[in-house]
Amino acid sequence: MNNDAPIGVFDSGIGGLTVAREIMRQIPNERIVYFGDTIRLPYGSKSKDNIIMCSRQIISFLQSQGVKAVVIACNTASALALEEMKQEFDMPIIGVVQPGAKMAAETTINGKIGLIATDSTIKSGVYERYIKGYRPDVTVYGKACPLLVPLVEEGMIHDTVTYEMVNRYLADLKDEKVDTLIMGCTHYPLLRSTFRQVMGEEVNLVNPAYETALELKNLLEQENLANIKEVDEPSIMYRFYVSDAAEKFKKLAQTILEFDVGMIKKINVDEL
Amino acid sequence: MNNDAPIGVFDSGIGGLTVAREIMRQIPNERIVYFGDTIRLPYGSKSKDNIIMCSRQIISFLQSQGVKAVVIACNTASALALEEMKQEFDMPIIGVVQPGAKMAAETTINGKIGLIATDSTIKSGVYERYIKGYRPDVTVYGKACPLLVPLVEEGMIHDTVTYEMVNRYLADLKDEKVDTLIMGCTHYPLLRSTFRQVMGEEVNLVNPAYETALELKNLLEQENLANIKEVDEPSIMYRFYVSDAAEKFKKLAQTILEFDVGMIKKINVDEL
Repeated sequence: MNNDAPIGVFDSGIGGLTVAREIMRQIPNERIVYFGDTIRLPYGSKSKDNIIMCSRQIISFLQSQGVKAVVIACNTASALALEEMKQEFDMPIIGVVQPGAKMAAETTINGKIGLIATDSTIKSGVYERYIKGYRPDVTVYGKACPLLVPLVEEGMIHDTVTYEMVNRYLADLKDEKVDTLIMGCTHYPLLRSTFRQVMGEEVNLVNPAYETALELKNLLEQENLANIKEVDEPSIMYRFYVSDAAEKFKKLAQTILEFDVGMIKKINVDEL
Repeated sequence: MNNDAPIGVFDSGIGGLTVAREIMRQIPNERIVYFGDTIRLPYGSKSKDNIIMCSRQIISFLQSQGVKAVVIACNTASALALEEMKQEFDMPIIGVVQPGAKMAAETTINGKIGLIATDSTIKSGVYERYIKGYRPDVTVYGKACPLLVPLVEEGMIHDTVTYEMVNRYLADLKDEKVDTLIMGCTHYPLLRSTFRQVMGEEVNLVNPAYETALELKNLLEQENLANIKEVDEPSIMYRFYVSDAAEKFKKLAQTILEFDVGMIKKINVDEL
């Protein structure tokens, strides 16, 4: 495998771009091929079988694009499909759940961790399992927040309605006095300031995207897969594919990544 | 074709059940096979090509279930795929847009019609085209309301957040003094009382589901396809299929239809 081969990153839509953004910041030498499965979005309410099928198709596609490693940049897919994908594919694959869980376990002082995520991620219990693997004595308070993804997708990041929903979703976690809150969906870091406002200054916000980029960096170095060549232009470094609605994706991607993402190519999922 | 063959009805999820409900009320003798394409939900932000592909697969499936006619119980799919489907399949197929457009054109007095719908339905311009076909002098004021579907799917039908969003979405239409409002998405009749509250008593609310059931009734009589046999039990009369998340569908379906919908069968869309 070439060291200058790209990293494959995928999500159901734009959320995984918060992970891609961290990879770009922390490992600026690495090329990225991003796939947003916008026609099958959202993943958060889908069944395990379907998430596994979608993940398998997308990783095969990324493999055909010559990637040297894959990041499942979606909490739901990481929670439901990571183990199966690691067994099926012969290349390094990491998800966002384990790095986030580890950081939360290391961060909490009072042993009370709040977890906000999609319905499927909460129901899977995967965060709790990993966290208890690091520290069996902590309690994890999970809360599904199904409306936050559509609110972010609508660009309502600073909006009274979003504040109201965050306030409702977080009420129980505040009552439980969690000292650490995992933003367990890749869309959520875009609402960081609202979580901060509702939870107060004392609560630690854990962004699994940040920890995942760090883990990827370590993994590439361990496996002698890191790219040592010069940094190219973003337009050459980063390629973006979606399964639908390329224009909408482009607009949101440019807001999140703050550079011109160039042409977004559309792939028909029936051909994956 | 047997007169006691069922009617095929499909939507991206639960929304089309408001259409199925009207068919059950107005033509209680007819059997129904319902398909909710929950794995590819929502349709409202998808491209025309994809909506056509999904519709083709589902109508083929309904055909394999022996239906005598199909109702596209989704405004987006009616707007983007009805004409193609009528050409491709040799059986009566109707959508929800034309019946709703006709009723709105007949109802308005001041010639100002408001249309609330998904982004794709608004952009298609199909409602306006049909309405102007009936009455060229009217003006149609369209407004996409992307958050109303997720709010309904979350069961937040009577909620201050939903009221706030409806209030925002309808503000321009109120300013334009529309005297008729088309609920141009099959989820929206579930929010009827909120629209009534925001728009006031004077505005006419058009429910395309009601008009569609009426058109279906007339069509079946014209084509000598109406079922004249005795009414059976709901459990025998109505069959429900989904492409994902059968349990969640069942729960919402029972709230909307107010009877025990029995077993919901899951179909893999890859096999359609």
